Amino acid sequence: MALKDQLHWRYATKSYNGRQVESEKIDAILEAVRLAPSSSGLQPFKVWVISNEALKAQLQPICANQQQISQSSHLLVFAAWDEYTPERVNEFFEYSNGIRNLPASVTDDYRLSLLDSFASMSREQHYFHASKQCYIALGFALLAAAELHVDATPMEGFDNQAVDALLNLAEQGLGSCVLLALGYRDSESDWLVTLEKVRRARQDLLVEIR
Amino acid sequence: MALKDQLHWRYATKSYNGRQVESEKIDAILEAVRLAPSSSGLQPFKVWVISNEALKAQLQPICANQQQISQSSHLLVFAAWDEYTPERVNEFFEYSNGIRNLPASVTDDYRLSLLDSFASMSREQHYFHASKQCYIALGFALLAAAELHVDATPMEGFDNQAVDALLNLAEQGLGSCVLLALGYRDSESDWLVTLEKVRRARQDLLVEIR
Repeated sequence: MALKDQLHWRYATKSYNGRQVESEKIDAILEAVRLAPSSSGLQPFKVWVISNEALKAQLQPICANQQQISQSSHLLVFAAWDEYTPERVNEFFEYSNGIRNLPASVTDDYRLSLLDSFASMSREQHYFHASKQCYIALGFALLAAAELHVDATPMEGFDNQAVDALLNLAEQGLGSCVLLALGYRDSESDWLVTLEKVRRARQDLLVEIR
Repeated sequence: MALKDQLHWRYATKSYNGRQVESEKIDAILEAVRLAPSSSGLQPFKVWVISNEALKAQLQPICANQQQISQSSHLLVFAAWDEYTPERVNEFFEYSNGIRNLPASVTDDYRLSLLDSFASMSREQHYFHASKQCYIALGFALLAAAELHVDATPMEGFDNQAVDALLNLAEQGLGSCVLLALGYRDSESDWLVTLEKVRRARQDLLVEIR
């Protein structure tokens, strides 16, 4: 399906039919998440991929009881770094230079300026910055799902602290930031599927300066 | 180009060849931005689409002198709402209900709970929340560009306040949050184009719970 059609086909699914998404499709969606770009390439997050029914049932009440959580085939929980520690940043450059077979000296100036920049930011700003990178990957996952005709629901509005506690995220230096349910729409019971997609008109969203 | 190929083809272009991107391709990329989803559908941002050479030249020095700004064919500046004011939220529901031909009563409970939720957040948290929505649209723009074989560079690390001042964003209740240069790569002079793409291994990024 061409991107233009994907953009119109997808919507924030409100009701799923319980059918499992094939593992090769889940793999392709996760590969889009993995290959999404991030600031300086740090990929400052992890993604929980939950198909376990008991865990989804535990998550639903702390996620505003959104039924898509238990109805979904797979639930992705994007968890951002709570801090860009020097250890994490240095580990990334070591990893990246290893893959590219570059000496550390090639990236040292950039790495040090990055460490300086993070040192001037609060811990809340670190989490904010890392969360934004999750949203690029979320966008990639949404389009990957649409290409495969897999339905998806991005969800905020959950109890972040309770989700962090349930998945032991804080101990891992992470904080939950956004959820993505995956599955197949139940067109019969989904009130949103028949409603027109609402987007601002181009002239209300864009300012073109030629 | 299938999504899988787009993911591997694209990279954060470091050098452009000055060729203009065809207007129908720019339109398709902007349509992906316009159709990207956002929290509650509010689309809490605007996007400056700058092909004006003089303005790009003014922007470059306040954007860490990143050469892609002046070399690009078009520069997108994503500017997030600095605040979810009741006026903005109410205006959206009026607009959305108008398109869907729904009475206000259908969405009033949800709208009021949303207003309550925003009232409990700081102004900084509003901007943070709105910025994240920009990053979904950024992800959509990146994949739309790749589908069309248009190169792109997402950029942070600029002087937000100076960009806000140059584009008069604060007066419009907006704050710049991320840039996207669009154009065609200059493979001869781009040091990144030949380097291997670095991404974390799947097992270091994903936690699968079956």
